[in-house]
Amino acid sequence: MTNKEVPRPIRGIIPPMVTPLADRDHLDYPGLEKLVEHVLAGGVHGLFILGTTGEGPNLSNRLRRELIDLVCRQVAGRVPVLVGITDTSFIESLNLAYHAGEAGAGAVVYAGPCYSPIAQAELLSHLERLVRELPLPAYLYNIPSHTKVSFAPETVRFAADSPQVIGIKDSSGDLGYFRSICRACAGRPDFALLIGPEELLADALRAGGHGGVCGGANLHPQLYVSLYNAVRADRPDETALLQDRIQRLAERVYQVGEDQPSYLKGLKCALSLLGLCSDVMSEPFTRFGESERKAIGAHLRDLGLLK
Amino acid sequence: MTNKEVPRPIRGIIPPMVTPLADRDHLDYPGLEKLVEHVLAGGVHGLFILGTTGEGPNLSNRLRRELIDLVCRQVAGRVPVLVGITDTSFIESLNLAYHAGEAGAGAVVYAGPCYSPIAQAELLSHLERLVRELPLPAYLYNIPSHTKVSFAPETVRFAADSPQVIGIKDSSGDLGYFRSICRACAGRPDFALLIGPEELLADALRAGGHGGVCGGANLHPQLYVSLYNAVRADRPDETALLQDRIQRLAERVYQVGEDQPSYLKGLKCALSLLGLCSDVMSEPFTRFGESERKAIGAHLRDLGLLK
Amino acid sequence: MTNKEVPRPIRGIIPPMVTPLADRDHLDYPGLEKLVEHVLAGGVHGLFILGTTGEGPNLSNRLRRELIDLVCRQVAGRVPVLVGITDTSFIESLNLAYHAGEAGAGAVVYAGPCYSPIAQAELLSHLERLVRELPLPAYLYNIPSHTKVSFAPETVRFAADSPQVIGIKDSSGDLGYFRSICRACAGRPDFALLIGPEELLADALRAGGHGGVCGGANLHPQLYVSLYNAVRADRPDETALLQDRIQRLAERVYQVGEDQPSYLKGLKCALSLLGLCSDVMSEPFTRFGESERKAIGAHLRDLGLLK
Amino acid sequence: MTNKEVPRPIRGIIPPMVTPLADRDHLDYPGLEKLVEHVLAGGVHGLFILGTTGEGPNLSNRLRRELIDLVCRQVAGRVPVLVGITDTSFIESLNLAYHAGEAGAGAVVYAGPCYSPIAQAELLSHLERLVRELPLPAYLYNIPSHTKVSFAPETVRFAADSPQVIGIKDSSGDLGYFRSICRACAGRPDFALLIGPEELLADALRAGGHGGVCGGANLHPQLYVSLYNAVRADRPDETALLQDRIQRLAERVYQVGEDQPSYLKGLKCALSLLGLCSDVMSEPFTRFGESERKAIGAHLRDLGLLK
Repeated sequence: MTNKEVPRPIRGIIPPMVTPLADRDHLDYPGLEKLVEHVLAGGVHGLFILGTTGEGPNLSNRLRRELIDLVCRQVAGRVPVLVGITDTSFIESLNLAYHAGEAGAGAVVYAGPCYSPIAQAELLSHLERLVRELPLPAYLYNIPSHTKVSFAPETVRFAADSPQVIGIKDSSGDLGYFRSICRACAGRPDFALLIGPEELLADALRAGGHGGVCGGANLHPQLYVSLYNAVRADRPDETALLQDRIQRLAERVYQVGEDQPSYLKGLKCALSLLGLCSDVMSEPFTRFGESERKAIGAHLRDLGLLK
Repeated sequence: MTNKEVPRPIRGIIPPMVTPLADRDHLDYPGLEKLVEHVLAGGVHGLFILGTTGEGPNLSNRLRRELIDLVCRQVAGRVPVLVGITDTSFIESLNLAYHAGEAGAGAVVYAGPCYSPIAQAELLSHLERLVRELPLPAYLYNIPSHTKVSFAPETVRFAADSPQVIGIKDSSGDLGYFRSICRACAGRPDFALLIGPEELLADALRAGGHGGVCGGANLHPQLYVSLYNAVRADRPDETALLQDRIQRLAERVYQVGEDQPSYLKGLKCALSLLGLCSDVMSEPFTRFGESERKAIGAHLRDLGLLK
Repeated sequence: MTNKEVPRPIRGIIPPMVTPLADRDHLDYPGLEKLVEHVLAGGVHGLFILGTTGEGPNLSNRLRRELIDLVCRQVAGRVPVLVGITDTSFIESLNLAYHAGEAGAGAVVYAGPCYSPIAQAELLSHLERLVRELPLPAYLYNIPSHTKVSFAPETVRFAADSPQVIGIKDSSGDLGYFRSICRACAGRPDFALLIGPEELLADALRAGGHGGVCGGANLHPQLYVSLYNAVRADRPDETALLQDRIQRLAERVYQVGEDQPSYLKGLKCALSLLGLCSDVMSEPFTRFGESERKAIGAHLRDLGLLK
Repeated sequence: MTNKEVPRPIRGIIPPMVTPLADRDHLDYPGLEKLVEHVLAGGVHGLFILGTTGEGPNLSNRLRRELIDLVCRQVAGRVPVLVGITDTSFIESLNLAYHAGEAGAGAVVYAGPCYSPIAQAELLSHLERLVRELPLPAYLYNIPSHTKVSFAPETVRFAADSPQVIGIKDSSGDLGYFRSICRACAGRPDFALLIGPEELLADALRAGGHGGVCGGANLHPQLYVSLYNAVRADRPDETALLQDRIQRLAERVYQVGEDQPSYLKGLKCALSLLGLCSDVMSEPFTRFGESERKAIGAHLRDLGLLK
């Protein structure tokens, strides 16, 4: 299979796809198929699987490989597929990257070693060794809430010296940090600057970002694509209205109940209410109970997403 | 093979064994054999493999399985073998636990899911689900610097309601926390309370702890066993002198250079200088260079461990 | 002087007033007078002096007292004046509160003891002792970035058992926390729930908040008052457009340069460019240099705030 | 009064004196007099008042000034008196420093501005401005648990370019940090490197430190002076035994009960049991209740400090 090449920089909306599960170690096959088509039909510009929203590191190696195969086959080059390879083990990350390369993915996404705390100097040399052996280009993935380390702007700049490193997804939630990496990478116009948290989407695009990796695009891909287009076309009033709709969606779907992580539980619950896929979660988490499900149903009706 | 049963509570010195490596994905076989015999000859009361000192989560699944097989075979029931199963994925942790059970290990050791941040309530119910399926009894392993979550004393107490949970290793470095779990588990005298940081060994044993999981016991097992015996026999002056020797060893071996983690780099470097095993490290880390190696050599001579 | 009583709950926009300084220990008197009139002319619903934006804890006790006197006299009951009394010393906090009471202030605002780390149980009993002696009603002020402690929702609920505690200002920046205190205080409809960060103003008002304590209201008070009115009147499109204008103001004014705290430096710089007051800062900070000042000037022109 | 000049570097044991209180804003005069004589009789090399152990920032400005006067007068040049001037306000810190200079103190001690978070570059220039105006030489005081900021080794080195900055007290509890400032200041042999936590006293002295600012020296000054002398005379066995006695004292006196800060409550409680001074605490804290007091009494008898 020919790998779908990734534009440099990639631009637009690249949803971090949730992983539909039948049980903790098996895929929900019909759900997966439906979800992929639903998202592609919304006009997205890429698909990112096995990220944090995709519960990547929580899944077994077997299931991760199976998911890569199925998604690459189904997408079949319609958009580039990005594959998360974050793991505690360098060898397992490499193994996944090779599997992704053979399956036809366009790039890998790496958040760093996620067990041992690490200093910036060691992180940079570790990245250099990893990138040198990867069969695919790579995006960095900044998510210090999970990895305990933020890629310092200088680390990003030095990593960007390798043409194999083609962008970064920032899920820090800190717009100041995002701006600082925009400045740090100003000398490499083909380096993609992607924002994670959808609450910051319009702000990040205005600050020089190229796109968004927004969980809500699993649910309502057109909304995020429309916001992206409005910013590109410099239509500020439309931008404001669309960002406000995203804000309300995030508020109603990601912040229900006291159970954590309410973001991921809410998102999977909403997808299940829309009939797209199962809401089963992988360990260490469990899906929402009845009361939260009812609340989310009501909110989806308010938002006009459910009848 | 019959599994070596673990005493309840296990008492004494249980070294967290370093993993001798020939390269990043292959064992240093002669080094492994020598190290196991060296440690056992020092009179230790158990062996803990694939912990943080053992670089467990950083190693490939294949290598982890091979190490379990080789160590269990070589130890052959002389002491209980405890196996670290910490991973980002519940399924992979279970898989490792089954492998350990078949290889003849005595127990597993689990630090929690190490990618997704998790709240105490979810952590407890996750533990309950895991323990129910484990083929071996389990120790909790508190190391918030790596997992981002500390087992709250109430979580430990509730987890201890299951007879399959037989102890905890605390590597928080916070003696106040250690005391609070001693109090929380006062009702289960068969529950082992083990301290990680060797700087706190005497203090923790005096506070009601049953043993130590001290990295330095790879290097000089008798020293730690002697301190354990001195506390048990209530010989305060000998205790003070031995704890001070441990303090000086830690100072000279674990705090050389600016590279992190200086503890693990220093320990592997010292083992290599003593001719016990290679100092190759797994990613994301690299071994010490010449100047640090010289400094550690000089310190080992000062300490009388090298001629 | 009669104290201007505070509505229960207070509702609307209550700017955290910056303190115009001539030098590090003297007020900029004409600037102060102009700024107070500028803000009141914008239709705000109260004035909060000596908060974090007001550099309260950084100022000498003498200057704090002088500011209280001057502001209360100038406002003269047109809106309630809230006075920050946060200090490392309980006695100094009490002294300030008495001074505020005599000067005609409506309430005090207290963030907790800001030197010693403190646990929730001690924090609650400390609050109870403080409130019992205060001559004015009090708002809690949650700003863990500065005080190292967040008022747990239960602490807020218990504190709200005293009728003297009449609300909370939350500057945590965590909307999930804000929602949880809304739920915790649902039983006391006269308890004001105020949000600090203006980026969250619309979201917080929709979540049940009563008002905002937004730094940008020093600069452009009508904008914030209009957003408040739009939410109250349930005009979602106008809300979205106004929140987006606030977002852009925050982006252009608070995030210039690398110097910290860019929020406060940018705000004072902008006020000085508008001719309202001096941009001198109290220790430990210094005002922006020429290049940042030029950048902010350009941004203010873009935003239509400066010709 | 002539100020007692401080040796450069100051060496030995400089107890951080507790502040004996009759109530929250009044001194326990007989207790203060007794405590000063008790500590001086133990052979200490200096006295540090109004530090964290002295509850300095928690006390009113009036009481701080009174304490400075009384202690300087009573000590009367027998040892140098160091005065803590840490405050949220630069002006109040300066005011205290002037008062200390007039009262005859030898130096001031400053932990940084303790309300606003601050970056290293701003911290350094703030220090330079402060030091330039101080009437006395100054020690830095590193206590990030309270101030939220650690003096980076480079900041210490640059600050040490001013001859008015004559040392640092490190209460971080991180021996690695202490070593790094020893290295950073190697070029200024008259710069004093003092350790706070007494658990690290022997280790810090061996690492190149000049002395200890240990809370336990309020209780049993000779013990700490003896350890200091044993290290200086290079008597390792005696050092080990004395450090172990300190360890046990810390364990029995500072870690009783669940109330925080158990260190300070335990220390004041023990001083009161020994008849030296009152155990009243300043806000936000309260003294120990009966059960903790009984436990500490029993421990003091075990330690041979109480009959």
